[in-house]
Amino acid sequence: MVINSAAIRWHGDFLELLDQRVLPTETVWLPIRNSDEAAAAIRDMVVRGAPAIGITAAYGLALEAGRQAEDASMENLADAIDTLAASRPTAVNLFWALKRLQATGDALRGSALVDALTQDAEAIHQEDIAANHALGAFGAALLPDNATVYTHCNTGALATGGHGTALGIIRTAWEQQRLKGVYAGETRPWLQGSRLTSWELANDGIPVTLVADSTAGQLMAQGKIQAVVVGADRITANGDTANKIGTYNLAVLAQYHRIPFIVAAPVSTLDPALADGSHIIIEERHADEVRHVQGKPVAPSQVAVYNPAFDVTPAGLITAIVTERGVIDRPNTDKVLAHLHKP
Amino acid sequence: MVINSAAIRWHGDFLELLDQRVLPTETVWLPIRNSDEAAAAIRDMVVRGAPAIGITAAYGLALEAGRQAEDASMENLADAIDTLAASRPTAVNLFWALKRLQATGDALRGSALVDALTQDAEAIHQEDIAANHALGAFGAALLPDNATVYTHCNTGALATGGHGTALGIIRTAWEQQRLKGVYAGETRPWLQGSRLTSWELANDGIPVTLVADSTAGQLMAQGKIQAVVVGADRITANGDTANKIGTYNLAVLAQYHRIPFIVAAPVSTLDPALADGSHIIIEERHADEVRHVQGKPVAPSQVAVYNPAFDVTPAGLITAIVTERGVIDRPNTDKVLAHLHKP
Repeated sequence: MVINSAAIRWHGDFLELLDQRVLPTETVWLPIRNSDEAAAAIRDMVVRGAPAIGITAAYGLALEAGRQAEDASMENLADAIDTLAASRPTAVNLFWALKRLQATGDALRGSALVDALTQDAEAIHQEDIAANHALGAFGAALLPDNATVYTHCNTGALATGGHGTALGIIRTAWEQQRLKGVYAGETRPWLQGSRLTSWELANDGIPVTLVADSTAGQLMAQGKIQAVVVGADRITANGDTANKIGTYNLAVLAQYHRIPFIVAAPVSTLDPALADGSHIIIEERHADEVRHVQGKPVAPSQVAVYNPAFDVTPAGLITAIVTERGVIDRPNTDKVLAHLHKP
Repeated sequence: MVINSAAIRWHGDFLELLDQRVLPTETVWLPIRNSDEAAAAIRDMVVRGAPAIGITAAYGLALEAGRQAEDASMENLADAIDTLAASRPTAVNLFWALKRLQATGDALRGSALVDALTQDAEAIHQEDIAANHALGAFGAALLPDNATVYTHCNTGALATGGHGTALGIIRTAWEQQRLKGVYAGETRPWLQGSRLTSWELANDGIPVTLVADSTAGQLMAQGKIQAVVVGADRITANGDTANKIGTYNLAVLAQYHRIPFIVAAPVSTLDPALADGSHIIIEERHADEVRHVQGKPVAPSQVAVYNPAFDVTPAGLITAIVTERGVIDRPNTDKVLAHLHKP
């Protein structure tokens, strides 16, 4: 089967990823033919965004099984699973996808295993696109009419199978002619907002205004924003949410200004195994992401840097979590677990 | 007279400014010989920081009087004053310095006027250095022992006559061995934190850790910060404070985490003519400051941008304003006006 989405092209026997490190100035597709290449692409952020990472890991494992051909077995894929699982620590969709493929392939070997893993990876990809459209509709219904929305990082077609999570809500609201426009925070240090979100929204003709991350408070104080909508990398049983660094700032600011703070994610981002956010491992990335911008030095070369990729927003600051199954209003453990048991 | 400070060298008959656009990778001193060159240096951010802008404008006017020599009069300097006043709109120190020189020169002409303006510009420069040391001592006394402090933008020797305002407090606390370290927000879009503050503090041997601006909330939630200390570009009669964009975010976050939020500025930054922050003109700068980083494009070239240089923090979020005359605790109009009438 061939599946083309904005940043992930599946050709049946190899994968291509749109290199998000060089957007929007360059459009480069990188071929992925095995699990090592998939893991490297995740680690180096050729592909990013929790759902897209899960999809890439699934295809990586299926490709590795294909490479092993008649020798393919879950035992022979153990190293590949370990490598993929170690590629990034925070996004739970990665571990969720690998576990799902392990269950799928458990009793199979050889070409039967290859076929089963390939079909399951394709299903994960297609289900993610469908989930984005479903959650987009649930989330758009939460926005006031003619809203201007603030978003952070990139949660669009580039970060997912397609359509997007937070950007899925924004796209659906735009299609419904209920959205006025979007402020996109540039999202230092990696500039996902500048490089990816503003590019995606401009391509779709959705009015987007780019701002430095520290402009959010002033925009809220001026009454220019009616909702904040963000994605998630991991949501624990009680609703605490790990997402791109800066999300927590926005949640505190939104509460102070009494603006709804909405988290959008597929059910695969929910991690009921963790009771709360204190158990989430937060990835710290290289100091040069802050000392440099796109390879250009902007700080003393030896200055100490603290560069966490994510922060944790407590459930108490979240107005609603939106998944493809519906809305978890004012999340807590009972509501998150009930949502997971929903059909 | 010759006066050398970190970024301003006065040679008696010309001025040199350390070009802050190219720090820390290059150290370039630009000569300033008249008011047009001074106004251009302020507008183009060769020099920045409210007190340093005021000092530069004063020297610029004195140099212009020197250029007019025997023809010098306040009438003949009217255009120069207008040009200097129009160079940047938000920092009140600029207007304060020009008004002070106008009063000084009012009844004088020719060489007597040149001498009087030159001496007054030198006095403004020297008084600012002294004010920084005085406010540094008042502010350091407000910090808990062994504090780690968060600061934003650059308020150091580069932004003032020398020593600094918020960085003056930090430097004094460090000299008193009462400071553990500093987190510096990089301060997009102009990266004053990365390029200037981390460079200044590292040069002084003060432990500094650079972070993306959106990391502040997480640091506070983790208990890593005991105070936020920032500068000011204009403080209105009621204590509302215009300062670098992002200051307001930090004030809201500090209140949420019950961390002291301290504003440091010389008395010349107080503007009792404005009742409150709603009257402050906020400068908006060019979109390319956000679309580019140090000349390198990081966003679609035509994307809309909102790029205010400053925001306004309401007095209610400010724990204390510190000047060379002492501390205004929980500022309001009565306290600010009483402080201005203090000797």
